[in-house]
Amino acid sequence: PIIQAQDPAALVEAIKKAQPGDEIVVPNGTYTDLELDFTGKGTADAPIRLVAEEKGKVFLEGQSYLRLAGEYLIVEGLVFRNGFTPTSEVISFRTTKEELCNNCRVTECVIDNYNPVERYESDYWVGIYGRNNRFDHNYLTGKRNQGVTLAVRLDAEESRENGHRIDHNYFGERPILGSNGGETLRIGTSHYSMSNSNTLVESNYFDRCNGEHEIISNKSGGNIFRGNTFHECQGTLTMRHGNGTTVDGNFFFGNGKPNTGGIRIINERQRVVNNYLDGLTGYRFRGALVIMNGVPNSPINRYFQVKDSEASNNVFVDSDHIQLGAGSDEERSAVPESTLVADNVFVNRNRDTLFTVYDDMSGITFRNNLLDENLVPLQEEGFRKEKITLTDAGHGVMLPEGTAAADSVRARMDIMATPENTGVTWYDFRDESQHFGTGKTTEIGPGENTLFDAVAQSAPGDIIKLAPGEYLQTKAIDLRHPLTIVGAGAEKPVLLFQKTSLLNIENGGALTLRGVRVDGRECLDQPLNSVIRTSRYSMVANYKLFIEDCDFTDLDINHSFNVLRVFKHTFADSIVVRNSSFRNVSGSVLPLDQENDDIGIYNAENVILENCFFDNIGQAALHLHRGGSDESTFGPMLTIDRCTFDEVGTDEKWNKSESSISLHGTQFVHITNSVFDDSAPVRLHLVVGEPIVEIEHSVFSGGTELLDNGEPYRTHNLHLGVDEPIT
Amino acid sequence: PIIQAQDPAALVEAIKKAQPGDEIVVPNGTYTDLELDFTGKGTADAPIRLVAEEKGKVFLEGQSYLRLAGEYLIVEGLVFRNGFTPTSEVISFRTTKEELCNNCRVTECVIDNYNPVERYESDYWVGIYGRNNRFDHNYLTGKRNQGVTLAVRLDAEESRENGHRIDHNYFGERPILGSNGGETLRIGTSHYSMSNSNTLVESNYFDRCNGEHEIISNKSGGNIFRGNTFHECQGTLTMRHGNGTTVDGNFFFGNGKPNTGGIRIINERQRVVNNYLDGLTGYRFRGALVIMNGVPNSPINRYFQVKDSEASNNVFVDSDHIQLGAGSDEERSAVPESTLVADNVFVNRNRDTLFTVYDDMSGITFRNNLLDENLVPLQEEGFRKEKITLTDAGHGVMLPEGTAAADSVRARMDIMATPENTGVTWYDFRDESQHFGTGKTTEIGPGENTLFDAVAQSAPGDIIKLAPGEYLQTKAIDLRHPLTIVGAGAEKPVLLFQKTSLLNIENGGALTLRGVRVDGRECLDQPLNSVIRTSRYSMVANYKLFIEDCDFTDLDINHSFNVLRVFKHTFADSIVVRNSSFRNVSGSVLPLDQENDDIGIYNAENVILENCFFDNIGQAALHLHRGGSDESTFGPMLTIDRCTFDEVGTDEKWNKSESSISLHGTQFVHITNSVFDDSAPVRLHLVVGEPIVEIEHSVFSGGTELLDNGEPYRTHNLHLGVDEPIT
Ligand SMILES: [Ca+2]
Ligand SMILES: [Ca+2]
Repeated sequence: PIIQAQDPAALVEAIKKAQPGDEIVVPNGTYTDLELDFTGKGTADAPIRLVAEEKGKVFLEGQSYLRLAGEYLIVEGLVFRNGFTPTSEVISFRTTKEELCNNCRVTECVIDNYNPVERYESDYWVGIYGRNNRFDHNYLTGKRNQGVTLAVRLDAEESRENGHRIDHNYFGERPILGSNGGETLRIGTSHYSMSNSNTLVESNYFDRCNGEHEIISNKSGGNIFRGNTFHECQGTLTMRHGNGTTVDGNFFFGNGKPNTGGIRIINERQRVVNNYLDGLTGYRFRGALVIMNGVPNSPINRYFQVKDSEASNNVFVDSDHIQLGAGSDEERSAVPESTLVADNVFVNRNRDTLFTVYDDMSGITFRNNLLDENLVPLQEEGFRKEKITLTDAGHGVMLPEGTAAADSVRARMDIMATPENTGVTWYDFRDESQHFGTGKTTEIGPGENTLFDAVAQSAPGDIIKLAPGEYLQTKAIDLRHPLTIVGAGAEKPVLLFQKTSLLNIENGGALTLRGVRVDGRECLDQPLNSVIRTSRYSMVANYKLFIEDCDFTDLDINHSFNVLRVFKHTFADSIVVRNSSFRNVSGSVLPLDQENDDIGIYNAENVILENCFFDNIGQAALHLHRGGSDESTFGPMLTIDRCTFDEVGTDEKWNKSESSISLHGTQFVHITNSVFDDSAPVRLHLVVGEPIVEIEHSVFSGGTELLDNGEPYRTHNLHLGVDEPIT
Repeated sequence: PIIQAQDPAALVEAIKKAQPGDEIVVPNGTYTDLELDFTGKGTADAPIRLVAEEKGKVFLEGQSYLRLAGEYLIVEGLVFRNGFTPTSEVISFRTTKEELCNNCRVTECVIDNYNPVERYESDYWVGIYGRNNRFDHNYLTGKRNQGVTLAVRLDAEESRENGHRIDHNYFGERPILGSNGGETLRIGTSHYSMSNSNTLVESNYFDRCNGEHEIISNKSGGNIFRGNTFHECQGTLTMRHGNGTTVDGNFFFGNGKPNTGGIRIINERQRVVNNYLDGLTGYRFRGALVIMNGVPNSPINRYFQVKDSEASNNVFVDSDHIQLGAGSDEERSAVPESTLVADNVFVNRNRDTLFTVYDDMSGITFRNNLLDENLVPLQEEGFRKEKITLTDAGHGVMLPEGTAAADSVRARMDIMATPENTGVTWYDFRDESQHFGTGKTTEIGPGENTLFDAVAQSAPGDIIKLAPGEYLQTKAIDLRHPLTIVGAGAEKPVLLFQKTSLLNIENGGALTLRGVRVDGRECLDQPLNSVIRTSRYSMVANYKLFIEDCDFTDLDINHSFNVLRVFKHTFADSIVVRNSSFRNVSGSVLPLDQENDDIGIYNAENVILENCFFDNIGQAALHLHRGGSDESTFGPMLTIDRCTFDEVGTDEKWNKSESSISLHGTQFVHITNSVFDDSAPVRLHLVVGEPIVEIEHSVFSGGTELLDNGEPYRTHNLHLGVDEPIT
C-alpha cells in the first residue's frame, strides 16, 4: 500500500512498519536537520519504496542526511541543499558498520552545493556499501569541500565483488580543490585494491569535474567504465590501483581547456578500448592517454607496474599529449611490460608531436596505429600515416572515416551519456560560477563610508564607480559576491581605511579593483594590517581577485602591512595584477603561504603579475607555497611578465621568507621581461610533479640573487649579477 | 525643552535641531546597528543632553556605536551589549579627525561584553579626544578582544593638556588576553609622550583587570591618579612614558592572587605617594613597587631613565616584591637617578625578604622607611625596623598604627573607590566566569551519538556520566559552555568517533574529561584528526581544559593525529592533565603553537601535566610557543611533575618541532620528578622577560637530549645522558 507520512515522526514510524511492496510517501516541503534511517526488507518483486510526494518539492536541508540498510529498498526524488551532513556521508548505503544495503537503489535524487563551511572537513556525498546496489539518474553538483563525491567502499568482505551499478548520473561542476581529495568518483582504496569490486559505471555525464588530478580514482579490480562522457574535466580517469579494469567506449571532450585529460593506466590487465578523446590539452599525468611507470615490488599504496594491459581502438582528436612511462624517476623505475597499444587513430590539427616517452618502452607492443599525415610517429614499428578525414557523428564526435576504431566508437554512441539522458529532468540547473560586470553600475562620491554603504546595497556582478576624491572607511567592507570597484575618471580616487583591513573577500565574494589609489596613512598603528583579506575562516567557494591600474602607497604605519592577507583553507581560482604599482609597503604584497601543514594544500591556482612596479616592500612581493609531496593537483601556476622589483624583501626582522619572491612547490612558473634590483633573493624550491619552470629575458641586479634547491629549470637570456639594472 | 525622539530617524533630526538646554530623550527599547553621531553646541549653563528614557531600558546592540563632537554635550544611561562596534571605538569623543569634543560628558553608561568575534581585531571601547571632557560613573565589563578599554588620545594638538576627568567608573573583569594590547586604561602613546595630558583619573574601581602587564599604561605627562582601587588585578599601574605624573592615595588589593602588582615607575618627576598596597604577589615588572632601569638616550618608544622621582609615604602590607632597577640588561643600563624612597612602611606576615635589586641603586636616596621586625632591610641607611601593629581602617585597609604613612592613607580613604560609589546602580552585574559541576547530572549509556545528544541537551556546568561501554560519535560535538564528561564506573567507557574531531571547544566552551578512554580506531583515514579541538575560528572567551584519569590509545590511523588541536587566536586560561596516559599517538598531545606571527601572542596561560605517561608519540608531547620580544604578558606558565615520556617525537617526517617537548618564550617552567626516555630532544628557547625556569629531579635517558639556546636556567639533581631510565 501507499503510506502518506505526514511528518518526520510518521516517516520513522512508517519505515519501522513497512512491508514488502509498501510505498512510503514523503510529503512536499522542506525538512531541516532530518536524520533519516531507511531500513527494511523488501523483495525483488516487492521492494519497499521511499518517494517524494512530488519530485522537486521535497527538500532536505540544514544538517540532514540519509542512511539505508536492508534489502530491496528504493529511494526516489529527494533534494539535499542549503546545508551539509554533520556525519561523514550525505547518502550512505549503510547505517552502521554491520548493517549494509543489498539490492537497494537510489534514483532521481539531487545533492546541490551541500557543503560544510569547512573546506577541509572531509565528507562523501554518497557512500555505497554492500552488494548489487544501484545509484542512477541522480544529479550531484557543486561539491566544494574535501572528500570524494561518490565513493564505493570495500572495507567489509560483504562489500566486495559487489556488482553495483552507477549509471545515468549527472555529475555537475566540482571546482578545483587545491589539494588531494577532490575526486568525483572513487571505487575502493589502496588497502583493499587487490580485491575485485566488479562495479559497473555506465553512461554518466561528468561536467567540469575539476576537483583534482583524478576525476575517477579506480582503486579496485574488475570494474567496467563504459558510455561515460567527460565534458571539460581537468584530470583523468585513473586506474590508480586494482587490476582487470575495462574502460570501453567512453567520450572525453576537453574543448581545449587547460589540464583536460583522458585515461591513465597503472597496474595489470587493464583494457582501454573504443574510447573517443577530443580536445584534451593536459600533459604529464593529465595526458589524453598516460601509461605510467611503476615501483618495483610496489607497496600497496604506491604505483604497480603496468603489465598485460591494452590500449586499443581508441580515437584521439586534437588531443595534445600521449605520455608513456610517465612518472619515471628513481622510485618509479619499473617500465610497462607485455602491453599492447594497437589500432588507435590519432588526429591533431594543432600540432605535430603527441608522444612523450619518459623511459624504456620496449615492453609495449605498438601495432597498426594510424596517424594523420602531419603527425610525427613515436617509432616506425606499429605506426603508419595517412591523410585522415573526420566526419561528424553527432554529439560533437568527429570520427576518422574508414577506420575500425571509428566503427567501434560509433557503435558505442547509443550508450553515450548526454545532459539529456542523465540526472533528473525536474530540477533547475544552477550556474554557480562567478561573473564580474554583469550587474548594475552605481556611481558614488567621496566621504566617510560611502563605499561601505554602496557595497552593502550591491548585488552580484555590480560595478561601483568612484568619482575622484578621498574615501575614508571607518568600517571594514565585506564582499560576499563578485563586485567591481573602479575609479571613474583620470584622477584616481583615494581609498583610506581605519580597521585592520579595507576589503574582505568572504565566502562567495570576488573582487575587481581598477583605477584607484589605496593609501595606508589612516590605519591604526598596529602590525598586520592589510588592504584586502580573504575570510579569516575557511572558504568553500573559490574566489577571484583582479587588480588593474591601481597604486598602493604608504602601507607602512607598522610592520607586516600587506596588500593581501589570505587565511588558511581559502583558495583563489585566479589572482591577476596588471599595470599597478606598490610603494612603501612594510609587509608582503601577495603572501599565498598560509597552508603550512605541508600536505599538498595551497592558497591559489593561477597567479599572474603583468607590468607591475614594486618599490620598497618590506617582505616578499609574492610567496607561493605548496608543501608536501602530493602529486594530485594542477597548480599553483604563476606568470610574471614585465615587472620591476626594486628594494623588495628588505625588512630583515619580519621578512621570514628571506626573499623577494618565494616559490615552493609551484607547478608552473613563467617569469619573463622583468627586473629584480636591490632585493632579497628570488627563491625557487622545486618539488614533485616535474614542475615546468622557465625564467627568461630578465635582469637580476644590485645583489639580487636567484636561488634554487638544485632541481633543474629552464633559463634563457638572463642577466645575473648585474651592478646596475639594464634599462 | 525635552524632546522625545520616537525612533532613530527622529533622534537624528532632534540632534540636528538641538539648542542649548535641550534634553533629547531616547525611548526605552533595543536599538540594533545604531550608528549615532551626537553633535551640537551647548553652553556651560545650558548643555545639550542625550538621555535614556529610563536607565537600564535603552540598549544599543548589534553593530551600534556612538560618536560625540561639539561643546557641552552630555550622554547618560545608554547600554551597549550583544554586539560590537564595526568601527574602532564604541564611544568616541570625536566624529572625525577634525571634529572633537570639548566640555562634554558621558555618564552612567554601560558597555558589557561588547566584543567582536575576532580576538585580535583591535578596538577601543572608549576614545577620549579634545579637552575638558568627563567620563564618569560608567560600568565597563568583559572586554575580551585586543585593544585598550579606555584610551585618552593625544594625537591632535587640540587633545593635549586636556584636563579630562575620568572618575567613579567601574572597570569590571578583563580576562587575560595573552598578548600586548590588553590595557584597561591608556593615556597617550609613546609618540606624544613628551606632551602633557593633565588628565585626572580619580576614584575608579578596577576589578580583575588582568588583560596584560599594564592595568594602566600612562604614556603622557602631568596626569594624576588618585583614590582608585585595584581589586585582584594582574599587572601594575605603569608610568610607561611621560613625566610629572602623580600617583597619590590609590588602593591595591591583590588578595594573594598570582601576578597581582602595584606601581611601576619609569621616566622623570614621578610622584608615588600615600598609596596602600596589600596582598600583591607579583614579581619582576609586576612587583608592588617597581623602579625600572632606563635606556641611555632612549628612543621615544623605549625606556627613559628614572630621574627626580619619588616613592614616599606608601603602605605595603603582605606584598611580596619590591623591584629596584628592574629590566636591567645590556640595553637598559641607565640606573635610577636623584630619586627618593622615603617614609614608606612595609609589613609582611608571610615572608622576610621583599627587595630585589637588579643594578646599582646609588641614585636612589632611601630615607626613614619602616620595616616590620621580621623583614630584611635593603640596606642600613634609610631603613629601620620595629614591631608594627595593623589596625582595620575599614574596606579591607589594614594600617600600621602610629605612622605618618598610615595617616596619609587614612586621609585619602574618603575618595577611595568602592563597588558602591562607582559605576551604575541600575544594571545587573553578571558573573562571566566559567564553572564546572554547578549544573545537573545526566547519566547516559553507550551507543551511537548518545553523547552528542546529551551535550546538545546540556546547560552550563552540567555533568554527563557515562556508563561502561562503547560510545560512537558519527557527528562532532560542539561545546559552547562548561561541561564535565565523566566515566561512571570503574571500567572506563570508550569513546570512538568518525569525524575529524570528537569534541570541539567553541567560544564559551570548557571541558573536564574524566575517567574515559578515547580510541582512534573508527576515525577516517586522513591526516590531522584530533580528539579535542578548539574552535577553528577566533575565540574571544578564554577556555579551560581539564583531563583527568583518561587513557588515549591508538590515535594513529594516519599522520598528525593529535589529542588536542588548537587554532590561531584561541586562548586557554588553563590546560591541566592529570593521571592520564597517551599511547600510540601519531601527532602531538598538546601543540600550543599556532600563534606564528611572533608578536608576543600565545595559545595558553597555564599548562600543568601531572603523573602522566606518554608512550610512542609521533610528534611533540607539548609545544608551547610565544614568539617575539614583547614583554607585556605573564605567561605561558608550565608545570610538569611526575611524568614519563617514552619514545616521544619519533616521527621524523612530520615532527617539525624536532622535539618531544618544545618551550619557546615560556615565562615560567617547572619540570620535576620526570623521565624522558628514547625521545626527541627537550628544547628550551628562553627569551625576554627573564623567564623563571627550573628543571630538577629528572632523568634524560636513551639518548634524549636537553637542549637550550644558551640562556641561563636552573637545574637540580638531573640525570643526563643515562643509558637506561633510573626507576
Ligand atoms: Ca586523489
Ligand atoms: Ca601594553
